[in-house]
Amino acid sequence: MPPPAAVNIDVSADGVDDNSASTTPAYLTVLGVDKLRANSIFSGGIAAIGLSDAFKSKSNSTKPMSKDFTYRLTLESKSRQPSPLKQAARYLSKEGMISLGGGLPSSAYFPFDHVSVGVPRGDLFSEKDIHEYAHNVTIGKHDMKEGKSAYDLSVALNYGQGTGSPQMVRWVTEHTEIVHNPPYQDWACVMTVGSTSAFEMCLRSFCNRGDYFIADEYAFCSAVEAGRGLGNDAVGIRMDSEGMIPSHLDEVLSKWDEKKAAKPFLMYLVPTGQNPTGSTQGAQRRKEIYALAQKHDLIIVEDEPYYFLQMDKYIPNSQSNGSSEDTTPKTHEEFLKSLTPSYLSMDIDGRVIRLDSFSKVIAPGSRCGWLTTSSKVCERLMRHNEVTVQAPSGFSQAILFKLLDEHWGHGKYLDWLVHIRKEYTQRRNTMLEACEKYIPKEVASWTPPAAGMFMWFKIKNEKHPSYKTKNLVELEHEIFEAVIDQKTLLAKGSWFFAEPEGDHPDMYLRATFAAAEEGAMVEGIRRFGTALRVSFGLPALKE
Amino acid sequence: MPPPAAVNIDVSADGVDDNSASTTPAYLTVLGVDKLRANSIFSGGIAAIGLSDAFKSKSNSTKPMSKDFTYRLTLESKSRQPSPLKQAARYLSKEGMISLGGGLPSSAYFPFDHVSVGVPRGDLFSEKDIHEYAHNVTIGKHDMKEGKSAYDLSVALNYGQGTGSPQMVRWVTEHTEIVHNPPYQDWACVMTVGSTSAFEMCLRSFCNRGDYFIADEYAFCSAVEAGRGLGNDAVGIRMDSEGMIPSHLDEVLSKWDEKKAAKPFLMYLVPTGQNPTGSTQGAQRRKEIYALAQKHDLIIVEDEPYYFLQMDKYIPNSQSNGSSEDTTPKTHEEFLKSLTPSYLSMDIDGRVIRLDSFSKVIAPGSRCGWLTTSSKVCERLMRHNEVTVQAPSGFSQAILFKLLDEHWGHGKYLDWLVHIRKEYTQRRNTMLEACEKYIPKEVASWTPPAAGMFMWFKIKNEKHPSYKTKNLVELEHEIFEAVIDQKTLLAKGSWFFAEPEGDHPDMYLRATFAAAEEGAMVEGIRRFGTALRVSFGLPALKE
Repeated sequence: MPPPAAVNIDVSADGVDDNSASTTPAYLTVLGVDKLRANSIFSGGIAAIGLSDAFKSKSNSTKPMSKDFTYRLTLESKSRQPSPLKQAARYLSKEGMISLGGGLPSSAYFPFDHVSVGVPRGDLFSEKDIHEYAHNVTIGKHDMKEGKSAYDLSVALNYGQGTGSPQMVRWVTEHTEIVHNPPYQDWACVMTVGSTSAFEMCLRSFCNRGDYFIADEYAFCSAVEAGRGLGNDAVGIRMDSEGMIPSHLDEVLSKWDEKKAAKPFLMYLVPTGQNPTGSTQGAQRRKEIYALAQKHDLIIVEDEPYYFLQMDKYIPNSQSNGSSEDTTPKTHEEFLKSLTPSYLSMDIDGRVIRLDSFSKVIAPGSRCGWLTTSSKVCERLMRHNEVTVQAPSGFSQAILFKLLDEHWGHGKYLDWLVHIRKEYTQRRNTMLEACEKYIPKEVASWTPPAAGMFMWFKIKNEKHPSYKTKNLVELEHEIFEAVIDQKTLLAKGSWFFAEPEGDHPDMYLRATFAAAEEGAMVEGIRRFGTALRVSFGLPALKE
Repeated sequence: MPPPAAVNIDVSADGVDDNSASTTPAYLTVLGVDKLRANSIFSGGIAAIGLSDAFKSKSNSTKPMSKDFTYRLTLESKSRQPSPLKQAARYLSKEGMISLGGGLPSSAYFPFDHVSVGVPRGDLFSEKDIHEYAHNVTIGKHDMKEGKSAYDLSVALNYGQGTGSPQMVRWVTEHTEIVHNPPYQDWACVMTVGSTSAFEMCLRSFCNRGDYFIADEYAFCSAVEAGRGLGNDAVGIRMDSEGMIPSHLDEVLSKWDEKKAAKPFLMYLVPTGQNPTGSTQGAQRRKEIYALAQKHDLIIVEDEPYYFLQMDKYIPNSQSNGSSEDTTPKTHEEFLKSLTPSYLSMDIDGRVIRLDSFSKVIAPGSRCGWLTTSSKVCERLMRHNEVTVQAPSGFSQAILFKLLDEHWGHGKYLDWLVHIRKEYTQRRNTMLEACEKYIPKEVASWTPPAAGMFMWFKIKNEKHPSYKTKNLVELEHEIFEAVIDQKTLLAKGSWFFAEPEGDHPDMYLRATFAAAEEGAMVEGIRRFGTALRVSFGLPALKE
């Protein structure tokens, strides 16, 4: 059973501090973020250690502890030792200590004096406004020493710990508690270089060569591809408009033949705005899948790049009587309550590894995200970071910190997310309206997505003239090429087969409403409609 | 046999273009970099593909092809397929194409208008000068579309290819040809998120669990630790003041018992300013080791973060007659010729994987470097990137490109390296002078390092009062703690054992001259001397 939403929980646990309510948004006050901050000093400067425990609200300590899943770690993950050089950083807290230990270059030799970034001023969130009224945030070389900031280039651009910088760990820990409030005590966050890398770490940590992992029937192809290299094939579970179907998951796991291969332990899900199908699991669906994860003892990797791109219900123009009601959330509380509860928010066991990403809500090029799971597993993943990527780019961490923490704070970041959500809602609506106008329903159907960036078209391949002479993949390619001939690029459904060798009677194509300008998007859908008509031998649309 | 230095080779191959000689540094003209640039257009914008072949000089095409080492790749590396989504980018070059394919967010939703960075003006390279006279380079959101720059935030902050951005691939390819001019034709560069990650990719690509890799007896502990997790233990080869001893390498490989384990195929080296010993392999040593790599069919991973920190010969104050001659190279050609030839520069087979890093010469927090090897192997490593880190941070790539390419160009970057080299030479000299003054030679000895950041002290443990009652690691810890008691942190030699379980009769401590301010560095060495005197029961130094 998931607990009530984060916002409500902490009201009762900590109580509202009336004195600070006037200057601090209520949802921050109730989480005690500002009170905590007075005690969270970034000691040590360069390569300081920052664990989430230092940054959680007081009420977190009343929760039960997680179960221990480390016994399921792979030999690779278990056998890593802490880096003695990184460990030695603890000596540096001693007053007057001179370090000739770690090979950290002096920041005097970084050829950067400051980094200044034009970011949104106030609520001026449109690209045009950000350009015309940009507010410059500046990260100096020695801002920390000079008392100007909690982060600076001399620290951000030197080596760091495998957790990522304490500055960013603090921010993502607070954000995670505000949004998800995990129901166990010993959760923690570790910075990642993005969720693609983070999922690969999960595979290497919990799957041995030959193990299978559970995925949706159609799944993010980089996740499937990462598994292929490691000898971890995906088992695709059938989907409906809410994604993975619990009864099929239960059936596959209940009937698993352990003589053939070990029963899968890792499950990969994109519960919100799934890639490629655009489907979103409702709260009840998530409860059922979590219960099955408990029954079959699964780790759930919850990859949620599109979590904040949850949209209003789509009302077609034809049914809206011309009145388009603006249902954008009016307050942070309303926005947070509008979000479907995450697996992390219902994870009483500590069996969820949530992957968060800035790629879809800030910028993919930041190559910076974070994961959240039990601190016992986090410790192992941090060791993995130490000998591989080390930490996200210091430029990325410093710029994100400056924007998210010192410029925006949690509240204004939520405002930004509401803005982005509204923009994507508009884009989705534009695409859906174009589809209604241009796509021949005789041969294609779709469900309006409730989140994310993707439209998923079911193609009625059985109506195609070549249906009897070509197999599914050949026919899909013919139709894909017909769309290319109309100078429009879509993604093939077959690119997302969790089981490329499996049986796939249905045909799909994916379109994104994220990338193209709105005019081009409408034109792209028009061309797609034309291509379908040409390929299926339908009469041309009368315009 | 290594070819002559890069600079000379290309003079004969391409000839000097007299017309451009007045405005273009000669070494660039001879490499044809500027001529090439007219033809190297960054097509496609977002997620464009950039392979090194597009950015090499004409003379490169006259070289022989490399041998094919891909048959030695691991199953993991061999089994990766190209990402269909990344592959689909090729359709986008078609005129008028509308992409509804890839899930790339619109750059309109990146909350950054520009990034402006204070970098050195002219030759004003000191931290104080960079602060006072900073030159601001600015990366706009749409500079490419507006014809202002070859790179911008709309591209850098979106998704990219597994090679890294074409802009940075161009720069590192040119730099690699200028400095190393690999003697085979089909070499290529791939961007990495740093050499720690790159070495782990090499292990995963060429070593199966249970395989050993060759390393120095004392080796970079993150490399050893990365191997441990993968079940790849290091075999430590004995070292002298020039690093790995060829005869011992030959002996170990010649006597290898293939019934016990597969003969090692991967060799990890830090040939210049080795970590931790500070040793540098001379040109003759490298030739001998390369010949043994050919004899025993090894891949050489050449990890060279300290390559440009090659210093002048140290002349102690006592022998310099007070006259300190400045031997800083006066021209780029002189500087490049002063560098010990890299393994890459003598790699006629394509068996070297060179790892380059900006960590020690620009900033570790850039988490951006590159590797160079045959394009056949590069293609596999790029696939590895695609399903893991994807590419370095776009902030890092854009800022480095702006500084290295558009602000500095290759020539000014070499000036910066000469500056850094001079600063580190000064720091090394300061530490060596402090050592002569404070370290009791009865119980410690050292060789002046010719490159890098590290001093390696041999401790005469047999003279310690506890020698007979403690084993090496226990006694090392006692001395390490004695130094800590004097409020100075060194690194233990045992942290760098390639074979932790091996036999280690000698004791070492490592000190870095990279990090502390010069005054603190001298004081740290004084304290280290005091600690040795206390621990070994020697009389105090009379000051």
